[in-house]
Amino acid sequence: MDAHAGADARTRQGSSLEARLLRWLLGSFGDPPLEFHLCWSDERVSGAVTGPLETLRITDRRTLLALLLDPQMRFGDAYVTGKIEVDGDLVKLMVALFQIFAPDARESTLSRIAGWCRRPRRNTLVGSRDNIHRHYDIGNQFYALWLGDTMAYTCAYYPGAEYTLEQGQTAKMDHVCRKLRLGGADSVVEAGCGWGSLALHMAARYGAKVRAFNISREQIEFARRRAREQGLEHRVEFIEDDYRNISGSYEAFVSVGMLEHVGREHYPELGRVMRNALTMNGRGLIHSIGRNRPATVHPWIERRIFPGAYAPSPGEMMQIFEPFSFSLLDVENLRLHYARTLRHWLERFEANVAQVRTMFDERFVRMWRYYLAGSIAGFDTGTLQLFQMLVTPYNNNDLPPTRDYMYPR
Amino acid sequence: MDAHAGADARTRQGSSLEARLLRWLLGSFGDPPLEFHLCWSDERVSGAVTGPLETLRITDRRTLLALLLDPQMRFGDAYVTGKIEVDGDLVKLMVALFQIFAPDARESTLSRIAGWCRRPRRNTLVGSRDNIHRHYDIGNQFYALWLGDTMAYTCAYYPGAEYTLEQGQTAKMDHVCRKLRLGGADSVVEAGCGWGSLALHMAARYGAKVRAFNISREQIEFARRRAREQGLEHRVEFIEDDYRNISGSYEAFVSVGMLEHVGREHYPELGRVMRNALTMNGRGLIHSIGRNRPATVHPWIERRIFPGAYAPSPGEMMQIFEPFSFSLLDVENLRLHYARTLRHWLERFEANVAQVRTMFDERFVRMWRYYLAGSIAGFDTGTLQLFQMLVTPYNNNDLPPTRDYMYPR
Repeated sequence: MDAHAGADARTRQGSSLEARLLRWLLGSFGDPPLEFHLCWSDERVSGAVTGPLETLRITDRRTLLALLLDPQMRFGDAYVTGKIEVDGDLVKLMVALFQIFAPDARESTLSRIAGWCRRPRRNTLVGSRDNIHRHYDIGNQFYALWLGDTMAYTCAYYPGAEYTLEQGQTAKMDHVCRKLRLGGADSVVEAGCGWGSLALHMAARYGAKVRAFNISREQIEFARRRAREQGLEHRVEFIEDDYRNISGSYEAFVSVGMLEHVGREHYPELGRVMRNALTMNGRGLIHSIGRNRPATVHPWIERRIFPGAYAPSPGEMMQIFEPFSFSLLDVENLRLHYARTLRHWLERFEANVAQVRTMFDERFVRMWRYYLAGSIAGFDTGTLQLFQMLVTPYNNNDLPPTRDYMYPR
Repeated sequence: MDAHAGADARTRQGSSLEARLLRWLLGSFGDPPLEFHLCWSDERVSGAVTGPLETLRITDRRTLLALLLDPQMRFGDAYVTGKIEVDGDLVKLMVALFQIFAPDARESTLSRIAGWCRRPRRNTLVGSRDNIHRHYDIGNQFYALWLGDTMAYTCAYYPGAEYTLEQGQTAKMDHVCRKLRLGGADSVVEAGCGWGSLALHMAARYGAKVRAFNISREQIEFARRRAREQGLEHRVEFIEDDYRNISGSYEAFVSVGMLEHVGREHYPELGRVMRNALTMNGRGLIHSIGRNRPATVHPWIERRIFPGAYAPSPGEMMQIFEPFSFSLLDVENLRLHYARTLRHWLERFEANVAQVRTMFDERFVRMWRYYLAGSIAGFDTGTLQLFQMLVTPYNNNDLPPTRDYMYPR
């Protein structure tokens, strides 16, 4: 199969009802660089577009119909089961699709009805455990294949063009520690610590005393082992518990990549936990995937990858802080850094795909590829954002005059 | 009158009904460093507090009663007419009062009822003109006495301890220009340009082509004169018109200290103006006084100083950007810089008070002093914030990897 169908292929365009319908749809979406290949009739359909095309090979009529009725949900499912195959670059294809479904575009009525039937799972204490278990407890060995040495499963930070994944993750941790102005005497509480890399970094490099919470058993066990190996178990305590059970008083509160799993209805609860945890001059940082405006999570991602997840707009994030009069000190958007991080992850996933196949079936491999490629497209097209927000109690006047302490040279 | 009543004075505490009531009130507010001097009975009342006190001298019983029923409104009015006199430091007294009425404290029921009777003035096209005229058109000569050479009537930026007011205002303008990444070929539109200092700075130092809007006639005339004097009239166009009438396409949209006059109900209108004004890779910056949580403007300030004004929370500010899917790139909080700016203004105001008295009556002098001192207290205590928010259209990928371009060394 030719990955980039040229002018020759385009002359053999199909004339069936489906082919004409698809051509009309492509035209009404501004002729994106896509081509459909309908296997049952061997027809090809593309819009009035020059240059390389990514080809979407659809095996049967039924899949096409499902795709037209509920594209956001059915595209992923059909890709996973192999009923859709992509000839060409999956990421480029996903970028083209995201550009069609731009943030300003309205959902189709059918998609919206389909959405009502799929309410997100609730993040109660029990519900959260179940939601988190489904994604994070599928095997540390699997994640180790593509997350790199830091085992950080969140957006990295690339101040330079030459940064590797590991350098980017370390730079992210330093960036967060600098924003929090971590010093040796500081105690830190972390909500949602993943495999523990940030907690260990704060203790090892900044001398901080850290209590790190997480409800994923596999992650906590992994993190405790690392702490013992690095001789940091007296400075870092990993606690298998929900962020809502945080107690004690700390100079810093940090949460990197947990808010996505908190659920909007629990934001004021998170704010209350932060207020109770922070000293008068304490600093709090929340790092989360976000959106430019309130919007539901991509339904396929919510259903198949992150049950119960939600990516808030900045205004929605303020529902964590405003009820407690936190003073917002700083917001940074690292959107393109996440696209780059995901590219690193996808590259390593593909490089190790043979090993992944010894752990999971082909459906899983395709699901994960689709999820990573789609996420790249989401950040590349500006559909997804990555916000770091820094806050402090309202009456803390111990503030640096400028932010250049975040940019040491 | 002794500015700081010592232990002796405290032994002569009054025993009348009013005195006992005030003592009970001071106690229930945690004994702030205040003393009341009731002139009609020559009684003094203070709480259980050691150290220096600021004394509030109240001339008559009626003023005291009014103060207890509606403190936020009546304190200012009674100060302006001289029915309350402050022996000691007005700013320190205001700080103590702001700490009593902390952001987490609830308004008294009576204050709230009083608040309902004072609806803010509406910022329609005609209403805005009237509201702005009342504050900004009282005389350029008056403002020149205390705003310094730049005539910038907004928060300055003090990267160093030794910065003067003029240096701080220039540093603020450079900080804004750097955030917007202004280059020589850029065109800029400014909404609410004051006396024109930022527009002229952008043209003179960054080579930008600027169109600056303002509905204050006196300010626009002053700005045009400056442009002619500096030979910049071919690069900066000052337009006496409402921001809602901005047309054209620009690389940068900037608004420093206008949002306070826009009114919440017009935020989406402002967002629409920004969206229509900005090119695909354009940058927009809004600089505004804000609050940690949604809250009404101090009623005395809204009534006597800034009719129609409102200071939004960050979440409320997002109502400008989110409906148009603007991507939030950066938020900075310059709260303590505004306290310092206001201290500079108050110092210069007092240094030139004899000249002010040749322009206005004593009531005006006391009103202005009260307004500046109260504003210092607002920013010092964390009641008021100063946000700079930077946004760009959602699909602009021409973004610097880090923010260190904002911090040249």
